[in-house]
This record gives sequence, C-alpha cells and structure tokens, in this order.
Amino acid sequence: MTVNAKGAEMGSVGRIEPQAMHFAEPLPLTSGKQLNDYTLVYETYGTLNAARDNAVLVCHALNASHHVAGVSPAGDTGWWDNLVGPGKALDTDRFFVIGVNNPGSCFGSTGPTSRNPDPAAGGRVYGADFPVVTVEDWVDAQARLVERLGITKLAAVLGGSLGGMQALAWTLRYPERVANCVAVATAPKLSAQNIAFNEVARRAIVTDPDFHGGHYTQAGTVPKRGLRVARMIGHITYLSDDSMEAKFGRTTRGASDNGARHNYSTQDIEFQVESYLRYQGDKFSEYFDANTYLLITRALDYFDPAHAHDGDLSAAFAVARACRFLVVSFTTDWRFAPQRSREIVKALVDKAQAAREGLSS
Amino acid sequence: MTVNAKGAEMGSVGRIEPQAMHFAEPLPLTSGKQLNDYTLVYETYGTLNAARDNAVLVCHALNASHHVAGVSPAGDTGWWDNLVGPGKALDTDRFFVIGVNNPGSCFGSTGPTSRNPDPAAGGRVYGADFPVVTVEDWVDAQARLVERLGITKLAAVLGGSLGGMQALAWTLRYPERVANCVAVATAPKLSAQNIAFNEVARRAIVTDPDFHGGHYTQAGTVPKRGLRVARMIGHITYLSDDSMEAKFGRTTRGASDNGARHNYSTQDIEFQVESYLRYQGDKFSEYFDANTYLLITRALDYFDPAHAHDGDLSAAFAVARACRFLVVSFTTDWRFAPQRSREIVKALVDKAQAAREGLSS
Repeated sequence: MTVNAKGAEMGSVGRIEPQAMHFAEPLPLTSGKQLNDYTLVYETYGTLNAARDNAVLVCHALNASHHVAGVSPAGDTGWWDNLVGPGKALDTDRFFVIGVNNPGSCFGSTGPTSRNPDPAAGGRVYGADFPVVTVEDWVDAQARLVERLGITKLAAVLGGSLGGMQALAWTLRYPERVANCVAVATAPKLSAQNIAFNEVARRAIVTDPDFHGGHYTQAGTVPKRGLRVARMIGHITYLSDDSMEAKFGRTTRGASDNGARHNYSTQDIEFQVESYLRYQGDKFSEYFDANTYLLITRALDYFDPAHAHDGDLSAAFAVARACRFLVVSFTTDWRFAPQRSREIVKALVDKAQAAREGLSS
Repeated sequence: MTVNAKGAEMGSVGRIEPQAMHFAEPLPLTSGKQLNDYTLVYETYGTLNAARDNAVLVCHALNASHHVAGVSPAGDTGWWDNLVGPGKALDTDRFFVIGVNNPGSCFGSTGPTSRNPDPAAGGRVYGADFPVVTVEDWVDAQARLVERLGITKLAAVLGGSLGGMQALAWTLRYPERVANCVAVATAPKLSAQNIAFNEVARRAIVTDPDFHGGHYTQAGTVPKRGLRVARMIGHITYLSDDSMEAKFGRTTRGASDNGARHNYSTQDIEFQVESYLRYQGDKFSEYFDANTYLLITRALDYFDPAHAHDGDLSAAFAVARACRFLVVSFTTDWRFAPQRSREIVKALVDKAQAAREGLSS
C-alpha cells in the first residue's frame, strides 16, 4: 500500500473476475451490416452509487482489453492498474469504473475468433467474415452495455490512443450521456503517414502464407510472421525518434561481450533496438489475433468525425456543448504527438467561442 | 534540348553501354573476410582530360546502380539523368563522370546473385554466403576502379543518402584523392529509429517462407512478400509526415467512384496512400534482390565514422583537411532530414576552426 500526492492510501482493486453480457438484438454497424447475437466481456471496479452517477467508462486501445485494473484469474495485472484503484487518480472508493472489451477484439467479446452464428458458416469461427467495425460501432456497443447496467449518464469516459478516439466519439454520439471526457494521446483522425504504417502492418499479416485469407483457424495455422512484423512497425511508431535514441541509441549487443563491436551479419542481432523490437514482435504474435489486428487498425483509419462537417472539427463538437474535456498528450509519443492533441483543443476552444457568440447575439 | 539557368544547352549523354572491370586480387573487407575474384560494372559519361583531373565519381544508394545518366541498352533512363549531361549541373562537356555498381548489389557487379567462385559452393550463386560489406568496403572497391582508370585524384565524389555516406567515407579514407565532396540528404550515422526501420524490413524478408535462409535461388523461389513489405516501409521513411499529408492526405479511392467514401474492408485499398505503397512494393519486388537488400541496409546501419574517434565526428574529419564539402538536404526528406546534414556541417566547421587554431598557435 502506497500513498498518492494527497496522502490518500493507494491500493489495488484486488482479484477481478471478468463478466459477460449477451445481446440478442443485432448491433447496426456503420458499414450497413450488423452484428448478430454478440457478447461483451467487461470488468467493474468500485461500487455504483444509489444515484447511479459515479460510473466511469475506460475504453481500450489496439492490444488491450476489458482488464483495466486489478489481477485477473490468470494472474495478469490490468493495463491501467496504476490509474485505477482505491486512492488512485481514478479512485474506486468514489467511482464505479467499467472496462469493456470491444466487439472485434480477441479477449472474450465476440470477434473473429468467435463462432459465427450464421447457419451458413457451419459452426466455424468468423475469421475474415467478421464485419468491419468502426470507433462509432464500438461506442454504440458500449452504450448498450452501460444502459443495461442501469447507468443513464457516465461521470466520465476516458481512454488513450484509439481509446481516446472512443472517448471523443462518446461526446459526439451520446453527448447527453457523458459529463466528462478524458482523451489521452489521441488524434481527431489519422494522418496519411499513420494510415501508411497501418497498411504496411496489414500487408505483412495478409501476405503471410499462414493467413489463408483470414481463415487460418480452419487451416490450423497462425500468421505469426505477419503479426511479428506488424508489431515491430507499431513499436517504432509508439516511440519518438528522440526517445528511441535515448533508450537505445546505437548500443550494440556485442559491445558488452568480447569487445568486438559487430558480428558482421545481416540476420543476427547487432543493435539493442533490434533485440527490443524482435522481443516485442515475438511476444505479441503469441497472444494476438491477426484478424483483430486488421479490424482495429481499420477502425483507426476510418475515424474522422470532422468529415461529416466538411472537415470542421469544431462544428463536429458543437453537439458536445455540455461535456467537459481533458486532453492529455506525451512529448515522447510520436504517432499521436502533442500537436494532434492541440488540434482537438483548438476545435473545442473554437466551439466554446462560437457557443458564447451564439448566446450573446 | 533545353537550356539551363545560365542559358547553356542541356542534353542527354545519349545511349550508354555499361562496362565491366574484373579484379583478380581479393578485396579485404571490414569484417575481416575478403571478396575474391570480383567484377565491377560501371558507366562513364564525358571525356577524361589529358591532365586526368576532371573525373567525378557518383555513388549510388540502396536501389540504384551504375546507370546514372543516359539511356541503357534496355531503354532505361539513368537515375540522376537530370543532373548529369551536357550543360547540366554535372556538365559532361567539362567532367568525366563515373557511375559504379557496388559489390553486393544486384545490377551487374559481383553480389549475392553472382556465382560463388569458392569450389566448395559447387558453382552455385552466393546467396546468403556473400560476405557482409560496409560503406568503407565499397569505397575501397571504387578506389581500385578509379585507379585502374588512371585517375590519381577525383575532382569530386558525390552521392545521396547511402551514396552520400560513400562520398563522406572517400574524404576520410582517401583524402588526398578527392578535391570536392558533395553529400546529399545523408547522415553521419543512422539513428536508433533508422536502424529499427531497417531491421523490420529485414525481418519481413528473412521470415518470408520463400527466403530459404537466403538460398532462394537454389530453391527456385523469390521472397517477394518480404521485399514488398520492406519497400513499403522504406517509402514511408522517404517522405516526411507533412509531404505525405500534402501528397495523399486522407483521400480515398472510392471517393471518385460511386460516391461512397469507404468500402469497409480490411484488405481492399481504401486510401490513396495504400495504393501508392502497394504499387511501390510490387514494383520493387520484381527487380530487387533480397540478399542485396539485407546487405545494403546493414552497411547503412554500420556506418559511423565518428565511432573510432570516441564519437567525435569533427576529429574523424581532421584527415580531410584539403577537401571541400557541399552538404545538401531536403525539408521533405524524413529519414535523413536537414538536421542530420547539420551534424555534418557542424563537424566540418569545428574541424576547420580546430585547424585554424592549430596553425595560429
């Protein structure tokens, strides 16, 4: 047990059992298709108060899940455990925190590795037949779950990266159901370069001979080579050039061994940064689903709430008049650098200004 | 025929036949190994004068060759044809310009696709057994060629990117044999991020099942999937975020067709930037050798002339006292941005300052 800056005791939410909620009514998707008969896996921390107004929804990014805090039955600590718990920033003595795995993911909620309920699928898993989902589709699915939990309005919705996009989308789709939005290290839309990196990662997966057009489960294979390369690309974009330089520089592996700086090999590891990337790639390929990778990066690509407002992000935010926003970024983040957060802040400030002018006119 | 800024007539060097020079004496390599019995393919444009002091060597980068200017027998225009020719910046009415394909490349000089002269290889191509080469090894090979052409001192050596590294290395290894060095869009060493991108590209190639440990020629395959992904990664790094945004933005393919913005597919092309990258990848995989890709990116990784001087680049340049330098960079280049060129300029200025102080003391 440690204490936070205010001297409050900080603790863990302890051992957490994931829960599951089944939805029989189809979820209409942005693509025009629908998701039939699906389940969402979620966790909650803290207690919903009598007024039901202390609920906070935490949205996950690419490789994360509903397991936000505490220790899972498998012994894994939640991905934002340092933020969520008694006395922590998201204080579970005050808030009822919800983590939910998005449809299309691979950690329990219905996704490409789930059985396709379509009789024509003959009991096989969805694989590549899982419908393409968007950030807005996820938010709709989350809204249904929140509703079922008896919550009319969330005290806050928050998330980082792709999770931050979901938090923003909540304020646009359900502005009356969100009091506060915390968007961390995110962007209002991907740049061409962001899309380019996603596309290369997808091509690495799709062209892996073990991918079998996305039906690798039937084929009894796993496109691990593609997943490894995809994850290596991802990890380069998660660190800025400067922070990668500070972390690895040109440090070699051999330097600490026999004194020879290089082995002169194209395939052995020479530099520490290579070792780091290979490790990250190997680890990821052991647990992540390839079709999920494709779906989630595509959802990132598509997110562009300003598009329906002729590119005017401020106009898009006009509906979110009553929501309060906290926008956070990291100078060490390269993909969603502070400049991308400033775009959001500018749009919100412009929106507030427009609203004030509207009131005074 | 067009005219340049000075009103001089600018033309093509016309149809060019590549030449080949065989070297029976082994080339000692940085790794401690040696390259036996090798051939360099080269081209020349213009005429070597009687004083033999008008020769200019152009060094190529990753995917280029000896074919710098004019039209090859196959009808291809040289990769720097806009720079080299009568009346052009590198005026072939004044200069004798040499382009040479580096050993380890795949455009005619001895490389992984050449027959391995080692009797133990049984007449097979080198493949993965081609020795690892460095920028310094290339410069040594070029120096032998230049010597055989009867040139004691080059009027200039120039190149871009990896070619620029060779130009810099010339001034360090053979300072008395270079009058001028033109280093374009290059760096004195790769950053951790640069190495990281090279490594991901190499892993994509090496883990392609068609790679067969680098002996794909014997296996009758070509690791095209890996080459495609490698080239896509490369092309992202060749453009800055801003220039990629200006060139592609979030323009979709469907936008111009039936009006629907997206097809909602993870594998089809949605955005123009995806189309561009796939095209570049496909094209590259048709002509480039995978082992050469590994070798050349490794040479990039290793280049670090300051390392032998405790990281002091200025000290490394001390030997190049008599050389004159022109350092050029592009704001649209992301991998070797102007900041990397400024490192070179700073080291050269510091060197000159140190030399002046040495003279005056």
